[in-house]
Amino acid sequence: MTVSKEFLFALAAAAERETLPRFRQNGWVENKLSAGFDPVTEADQAAELVVRRLIEKEFPDHGILGEEHGSVRLDSQHVWVIDPIDGTRAFISGIPVWGTLIGLKDDGVAVAGLMAQPFTGETFYALQGEAFLDHRGAMQRLTCRKTENLDEATLLTTTPSLFKGAARGRFDQLESKVRLSRYGCDCYAYAMLAAGFVDLVVETRLNPYDIVAMIPIIENAGGVVRTWDGGRPEGGGNIVAAASEALCEQAMAVMNG
Amino acid sequence: MTVSKEFLFALAAAAERETLPRFRQNGWVENKLSAGFDPVTEADQAAELVVRRLIEKEFPDHGILGEEHGSVRLDSQHVWVIDPIDGTRAFISGIPVWGTLIGLKDDGVAVAGLMAQPFTGETFYALQGEAFLDHRGAMQRLTCRKTENLDEATLLTTTPSLFKGAARGRFDQLESKVRLSRYGCDCYAYAMLAAGFVDLVVETRLNPYDIVAMIPIIENAGGVVRTWDGGRPEGGGNIVAAASEALCEQAMAVMNG
Repeated sequence: MTVSKEFLFALAAAAERETLPRFRQNGWVENKLSAGFDPVTEADQAAELVVRRLIEKEFPDHGILGEEHGSVRLDSQHVWVIDPIDGTRAFISGIPVWGTLIGLKDDGVAVAGLMAQPFTGETFYALQGEAFLDHRGAMQRLTCRKTENLDEATLLTTTPSLFKGAARGRFDQLESKVRLSRYGCDCYAYAMLAAGFVDLVVETRLNPYDIVAMIPIIENAGGVVRTWDGGRPEGGGNIVAAASEALCEQAMAVMNG
Repeated sequence: MTVSKEFLFALAAAAERETLPRFRQNGWVENKLSAGFDPVTEADQAAELVVRRLIEKEFPDHGILGEEHGSVRLDSQHVWVIDPIDGTRAFISGIPVWGTLIGLKDDGVAVAGLMAQPFTGETFYALQGEAFLDHRGAMQRLTCRKTENLDEATLLTTTPSLFKGAARGRFDQLESKVRLSRYGCDCYAYAMLAAGFVDLVVETRLNPYDIVAMIPIIENAGGVVRTWDGGRPEGGGNIVAAASEALCEQAMAVMNG
């Protein structure tokens, strides 16, 4: 079974018809939490539904894991993993660093995926061992930088406040060793890593749908994605993504104390 | 003396010819500091030069204060204040939340300004008492939201690590009172405030060129910009920008302890 670029892009286009018209509309935002704030919008829910429908029609035996509408057939060989809007906080704040994430696992390993940012017109995607950026029809191959040392690296994370206990101290230590750190990018951080403009993304407590789509994009751009203990990243949790093997090992050493 | 939209947009277009072709090119980056990292690029320097040349030609008696090439005639009635790339760290990381800032002061008060983000094709600008967003030719009036309470507000800042000593504790307290906070937006934060998608921007140790261009954009969108002690913001320093007077006062009360 192979998935085509046309099918991946049809999924992204369907999602975009639900997300982009609702971006910057100050539409309804629901809070998923009783304490704290975890927003979900009509755009999240509607975009995931249309993507699931297209997958169900084309591949009725495939599994689907989505952020907003749950899981079906997770014991299938092929499982699609969907975050209709990764970065809902950025979405409701008007900032175009959110993205639609759609990944495909084959026997547990992420083999294809895309991250689409409809406002900027960018689609970062991977399939059949290659990774590309399509920017309003202009194509380029994605290639990580060759950065091998922390003191030359740019580090991204969504916010350091997500690191709790000892992990916070270790993150702060890692941050003190890099040339530059930036916050607030959500999935756009992994896209910039694959495109060769930053070198490290370190995050904690990720869900599978936050990372599966980005794994083949980063790996096929020459980068590495791991859990902090060196395992495969498809399950989420504590994640390090790096431009090179050497840089990944240096970051893991710091984060593991 | 009045400045026209055509002249403002000619300045932005000249800057864009120097910035956009160098965005995402991994070009040279120089560190302005001997300890720490304060990057400057060829794009910063070249963009400021072309903007200064156009201003000198059109208004030879006006003053100019720029981040990269210094000050002339600061005792003039009219002074232009330029940051060719606000958010150079975002620029060199590939993230489109940087902007070209060009503001005009008349007798010390910011009366016109623009923030241009060439990659997304957005120009936020104010002149003659009105503020607009031009997004690839589509125009809309900028209007702040009517948020009046901290617990309904979205707060943006570049990074909390810039707040030192007691100010850090007060920023953390302010952050604990708002509905949502986000980091990492540079001048894009003020643009989103003027556009009505976020409610508060609090920053410290700003230079005049970080804020002057944004003042008329926010004020003409119905928002307020102050120093934390309630003064005019043209001089930079500790700045709060808010969607409403009530919200500004609540934020100032927290930041002043």
